[in-house]
Amino acid sequence: MGDLATQLDRLLAPGQRVVVVSNRGPLSFHRARGKRWRADRGSGGLVTALADLGRLVPIRWVSTASDAGDRAAGVALRAGRAGAVALNAVISAELPGQDLELDLVDVPEEIYQAHYGVVSNPFLWFLQHQLFALPYEPNVDESLLTDWREGYRVVNRLLGEAALGAHGAKTAARPVVLLQDYHLYLAAGVIRETRPDALIQHFNHIPWPAVEALQVIPRDLRREIVGGLLENDILGFQTDHYATNFLLAAEAFVPDARVDPDGRNVRWHDRTIWVRSYPISLDPDALRAFAAGPAVAEAMTHLTERLERAGKPRLIVRVDRLEPSKNALRGFLAFESLLERRPDLRPTVRFLAIQSTSRENIPEYARYAVAVREVVARVNGMADPEEQPIWLLDGSDRALAIAALRLAHTVLVNPIVDGMNLVAKEAVLVAQPVLILSETAGAAEQLAGDSLAVTAADVAGTSRTMERALAMSDEERIRRARRLRASVRDEDLSWWLGRQVRDLAAVAAGRRPPSRQLRDAMRRSS
Amino acid sequence: MGDLATQLDRLLAPGQRVVVVSNRGPLSFHRARGKRWRADRGSGGLVTALADLGRLVPIRWVSTASDAGDRAAGVALRAGRAGAVALNAVISAELPGQDLELDLVDVPEEIYQAHYGVVSNPFLWFLQHQLFALPYEPNVDESLLTDWREGYRVVNRLLGEAALGAHGAKTAARPVVLLQDYHLYLAAGVIRETRPDALIQHFNHIPWPAVEALQVIPRDLRREIVGGLLENDILGFQTDHYATNFLLAAEAFVPDARVDPDGRNVRWHDRTIWVRSYPISLDPDALRAFAAGPAVAEAMTHLTERLERAGKPRLIVRVDRLEPSKNALRGFLAFESLLERRPDLRPTVRFLAIQSTSRENIPEYARYAVAVREVVARVNGMADPEEQPIWLLDGSDRALAIAALRLAHTVLVNPIVDGMNLVAKEAVLVAQPVLILSETAGAAEQLAGDSLAVTAADVAGTSRTMERALAMSDEERIRRARRLRASVRDEDLSWWLGRQVRDLAAVAAGRRPPSRQLRDAMRRSS
Repeated sequence: MGDLATQLDRLLAPGQRVVVVSNRGPLSFHRARGKRWRADRGSGGLVTALADLGRLVPIRWVSTASDAGDRAAGVALRAGRAGAVALNAVISAELPGQDLELDLVDVPEEIYQAHYGVVSNPFLWFLQHQLFALPYEPNVDESLLTDWREGYRVVNRLLGEAALGAHGAKTAARPVVLLQDYHLYLAAGVIRETRPDALIQHFNHIPWPAVEALQVIPRDLRREIVGGLLENDILGFQTDHYATNFLLAAEAFVPDARVDPDGRNVRWHDRTIWVRSYPISLDPDALRAFAAGPAVAEAMTHLTERLERAGKPRLIVRVDRLEPSKNALRGFLAFESLLERRPDLRPTVRFLAIQSTSRENIPEYARYAVAVREVVARVNGMADPEEQPIWLLDGSDRALAIAALRLAHTVLVNPIVDGMNLVAKEAVLVAQPVLILSETAGAAEQLAGDSLAVTAADVAGTSRTMERALAMSDEERIRRARRLRASVRDEDLSWWLGRQVRDLAAVAAGRRPPSRQLRDAMRRSS
Repeated sequence: MGDLATQLDRLLAPGQRVVVVSNRGPLSFHRARGKRWRADRGSGGLVTALADLGRLVPIRWVSTASDAGDRAAGVALRAGRAGAVALNAVISAELPGQDLELDLVDVPEEIYQAHYGVVSNPFLWFLQHQLFALPYEPNVDESLLTDWREGYRVVNRLLGEAALGAHGAKTAARPVVLLQDYHLYLAAGVIRETRPDALIQHFNHIPWPAVEALQVIPRDLRREIVGGLLENDILGFQTDHYATNFLLAAEAFVPDARVDPDGRNVRWHDRTIWVRSYPISLDPDALRAFAAGPAVAEAMTHLTERLERAGKPRLIVRVDRLEPSKNALRGFLAFESLLERRPDLRPTVRFLAIQSTSRENIPEYARYAVAVREVVARVNGMADPEEQPIWLLDGSDRALAIAALRLAHTVLVNPIVDGMNLVAKEAVLVAQPVLILSETAGAAEQLAGDSLAVTAADVAGTSRTMERALAMSDEERIRRARRLRASVRDEDLSWWLGRQVRDLAAVAAGRRPPSRQLRDAMRRSS
């Protein structure tokens, strides 16, 4: 990463930091009355990917403080003095070796609820993952529009203003801002009002769907969203396919935008906006260190004992949150079909699902969890625990998840649609499993060649692919796993960041960002 | 249409007929024991559009016989003699002035059920209208794949073989075949096996969605579908946008296809397949004659009396089948919102919905109908019939539907997605209403300019658009309605057919079909 350091030197003035802005920060803070601060690392994909960013580049990370602990921490950090020192020690302990400042922006509960609990998650996230039953939902009603105005827009303004800091309009150095994800489609415009010269990049962690899917959004809103994104200098997506979809959306929804599909840019309001793909990844060395550590070893011991009691079956493993986009339901249905067609496999194979529950206070999540548990109960029937075909374990324990991946013969990653999916990358870094991968996971653009592709809705095909995985020779499995691992190691988190910094440096110098299309492998491979 | 006659002369040998193939024919037949034959015209969009085709061109129309009446009629027609003479008299009475032969192909009940009741309707039609709740449905399981093989493929083979007739391989003239709609994606390949020289066109009446939506179909199947369609010489779609989506699908799913997006064609297996849009329409003169006839007059009298009892309110009218794609639910929610915001409108406006029930034996349709009726019951409350805000009337009576359109101040056409939607065109031919039109109806490519566009999911926006429609001056309403009518009269059914025949004649002569892109108005207008 000597190259990264050089690029950063060009981009940043002495003492200047890259500003990262995301809805939630890398840590959430708690302090019982009179006790010490505690900090927990978030478990979402964004934080998993970005938590190590401060090792690579000096950053100031701006995010919302949306509960009492974060609000108090934000106040303490801004006040400086003893409280801030204690907090920074906690931050350093959780995120060691990082050059990191946190800025927690106070967002009143009601505004946050409108922003996140109504607009961002149940509307935008569902929409971009194509999870709506369109005959019934969404209903874009006055209440949603109010929450857009008084929640989403407000939080974008608060975070956009905080991105520039207290002296934003006055500092000489050109601010460099990395906006993260779908909660912040309007933040670039807020920043540019104050600092037209700011260098702003937005990276979208979730899928960017086809124009048809976006036509669920009222016209004024989708123009505001796409126009808001066009206030950036660079738009980053997980895959070439999503980047192409964005270009089509700009063409369809912003009448005065001029789209150059081959040059992958948009001309708008006398500016050029570059549209690029930066497939996110993780830090392989950090993961392998964790996978070799005591917590994972203990979890492996525990699992291995259970496997021995069960007669050493092979494991098909899945690790994910129990929510509709991950498609656990059809995964279990496919396994049920496999055992029906191949009862001989029943004694020698188990499906180990490491699942963390997620947002079960939202009715749609609760309904999905019930449907999944019904299928699991049916498949497991009255069998003794070790003989049950499906083993369900709590995925809030990351060591257990990594232990399961290390013991897997086959890892099933079959989301309906997924921005990237880091489990697929983790799996091939910590072990040599057969990887069954949904063609509609972002990771498929990179990993389709040596994984076994499935169509998410295709229960019959997923079942047959499991059968094929279990029948694969060890030689072929290992050969494929090695190539997958090499690919994931090549394109790791510092590669992800390095390409972005290189492109930003080029734009800062008035040049075309050098990153080209990577693959667009959805075409031709499927 | 002198031009059409000239083109047809070039295309057809003396005595040769154009072969039209569709799943259901224009008539269904019934005969009680010992009684005369009766024939009923189908009510679907395809039959509504094509029923007058035999006035323009000599056709042989091949379709399935899937119940006892149609099977008996098919036998009688093939046997000739007295039975056929009696039947042909019934056909002439129902479809007067047509040069038409019907061929009803016997399809066993079980095969038809697999073809239509499993694959075509609940799978393909739902998929192409984006109606699935993807976390739960569809489940592509072994049973669906069996019905694909033993139902859909079989019916495509039966109809494809019947298209060539008993002497198909032997006749000298090059067969000219017009395949209709999503039930017949594989028929062209069957025809081409026997007659590689056949001139085959497939017209798709329903939407062709984005690649993402098609990724619900297992890879083998979607290659079979897209490859099957590439056995045609010309592929016709309702809109430029659907045609573009098909080109993208060919690019994504057929590895050896070479797509030329600007030339709007595909090179595949040493053949060129042309992809064109032919927005379907209706016969304006036939409709206006019907609208001026006694059945409509009687229905208008009936409605007018009711309006007078209600104090002559203005009418917002919808006419459609009660099924999920038509989006009646959000239409009523929008009207409810309008009356809440503008209680002053309550005495002077009614929402008249002419709805035909549809397939209520399918759980998804029944569930939707219940949801709609719940909203209607809530809005209407305990009011007396004339004072109820929503008037629901049975749409199986076409005269009543046309009468309602003639009396409408505003016509609401707000489908989630719709191949074309002929109600929008009927409305402006028989009256001068404000047309509120979903931007995702195929008709929007033609009619967006002078209708009021709504986003289907946007209840708040639809409500405001109703308010805007009711506030529109008569001058503006009439000015818009006149332009809409002129456009619909210009691009009528004979124009639809004429462009296809002209393109077929060009392909027969080895030339590029002259039809170009029409509008692709989804871009830029939205």
